[in-house]
Amino acid sequence: MQVIQNKSQLREALKRARAGGKQVGFVPTMGYLHDGHAALIDRARRENDVVVVSVFVNPTQFGPNEDLAAYPRDADRDMALMRTHGVDLAFFPTVDELYPQGYTTYVSVDGPMTQTLCGRSRPGHFRGVATIVTKLFHLVAPDRAYFGQKDCQQVAVIQQMVRDLDFDVEIVACPTVREADGLAMSSRNVYLTAEQRAQAPGISRTLFAAREMVQKGERRAAVVSEYIKKSIVTIDSAAIDYVSIVDSKTLSDLELLSGEVLIAVAVKIGRTRLIDNIRFEV
Amino acid sequence: MQVIQNKSQLREALKRARAGGKQVGFVPTMGYLHDGHAALIDRARRENDVVVVSVFVNPTQFGPNEDLAAYPRDADRDMALMRTHGVDLAFFPTVDELYPQGYTTYVSVDGPMTQTLCGRSRPGHFRGVATIVTKLFHLVAPDRAYFGQKDCQQVAVIQQMVRDLDFDVEIVACPTVREADGLAMSSRNVYLTAEQRAQAPGISRTLFAAREMVQKGERRAAVVSEYIKKSIVTIDSAAIDYVSIVDSKTLSDLELLSGEVLIAVAVKIGRTRLIDNIRFEV
Repeated sequence: MQVIQNKSQLREALKRARAGGKQVGFVPTMGYLHDGHAALIDRARRENDVVVVSVFVNPTQFGPNEDLAAYPRDADRDMALMRTHGVDLAFFPTVDELYPQGYTTYVSVDGPMTQTLCGRSRPGHFRGVATIVTKLFHLVAPDRAYFGQKDCQQVAVIQQMVRDLDFDVEIVACPTVREADGLAMSSRNVYLTAEQRAQAPGISRTLFAAREMVQKGERRAAVVSEYIKKSIVTIDSAAIDYVSIVDSKTLSDLELLSGEVLIAVAVKIGRTRLIDNIRFEV
Repeated sequence: MQVIQNKSQLREALKRARAGGKQVGFVPTMGYLHDGHAALIDRARRENDVVVVSVFVNPTQFGPNEDLAAYPRDADRDMALMRTHGVDLAFFPTVDELYPQGYTTYVSVDGPMTQTLCGRSRPGHFRGVATIVTKLFHLVAPDRAYFGQKDCQQVAVIQQMVRDLDFDVEIVACPTVREADGLAMSSRNVYLTAEQRAQAPGISRTLFAAREMVQKGERRAAVVSEYIKKSIVTIDSAAIDYVSIVDSKTLSDLELLSGEVLIAVAVKIGRTRLIDNIRFEV
């Protein structure tokens, strides 16, 4: 595995790696890799000749009062995991490499898709995501890029951006990987105290129960939403940011559940903001 | 020459044309081609194996009260010129092809560079330019792209965008081509009445005289600017939109002229808005 910090070296390494029409799979990450990332890497490994993983805690997608400084980092552990999973190129750029002095260009996916769910609680977040993904796509020029469905809105926004801006890349959305007790894997889970960690699976349990409720016949979003809220407030030190029941493609609110439905929640447990979601056909 | 209207055909044609590592030069235009465009095409022809020209009157770069509907169009004449100058692929997309229903993604170069000169009089214009150029770059994936210095702010904005978003393309800025009497070539010159057309070279004459003034020792931007304004108002039915004396890279206003200087003007002659500029080392 080649470990690269700067853009020109990355371009050169990719030029060589791509020679003869080799296909490139790309997994952009913020590091502190877990089994969710490993699943993306494994899939990229199966579907491409060359696998590139980037590790970059992107400052433009964090709000001023968010956890940019505290975000967990462990490059050595990340590289070990990448080697185990057969990554070819590991890209660890610095902030100055990607946002030099005088940087001023941003990509925005406007409209309802970025004004709902996390877009409402995190203004500017998806502009930061769209911008960094654009930059990384330009640097890596992948044939396929892999994203986890845990960040369901991110996947929808990136798919819209790729369609709108005519990027020549296939976006592959992969299922959320969960701990044995159902908690969605996230680098942020490390923030939880032992007590909070024990409570956190209440979020996914609630989502699974809500899905069952719908599968048994309930179609009114308000009723399902009310059930979820009541269930989550029973979790110790949990505060609901949002509970949303939306169309999985457009992310627009549903009153009656039909088609491919996405139920997404954001919950603060103590100071840690966790997101989770479940998607199913009604 | 292959004439193409849709994106997937363009991608396929380019895949074939690029085979064996051929270099692609790209000239994006709004059509109604003149000798200025021809100079861009000729240069692209000399420096690349494959030359692609797009013709698209991009609605997102026009304001609500601007000349989108009236903008001159003549696809047959454009194709004849392209054939004469050895273009390989002519791309004539429709508006629906590039901005389908539900389109919501935009690229913005923020900061002073887009708030001055034409950015001040045409809010949203450079967002439209950055967005369409991004889309076309993704579709064509050129090695080099050619732009005329007549649109000096457009060149600066695109260079900033390419740098910021890590596009892997070389931007080639080419000198303004002028009519025998000095008028900068522009598709919009066709709007001028015979009388206005006779007056219009007063704009470039003024710019040349201003340069001479500086070359003879004047360094105070206010004095040069005042001279230009007084000279332009003597042109029949001319109204000044702006006269700006700026640093050619950052487009920030200069008080004293030094380094590479750009003097840029926008003037309305009757209902036709013309721009011109001159760039020189002080």
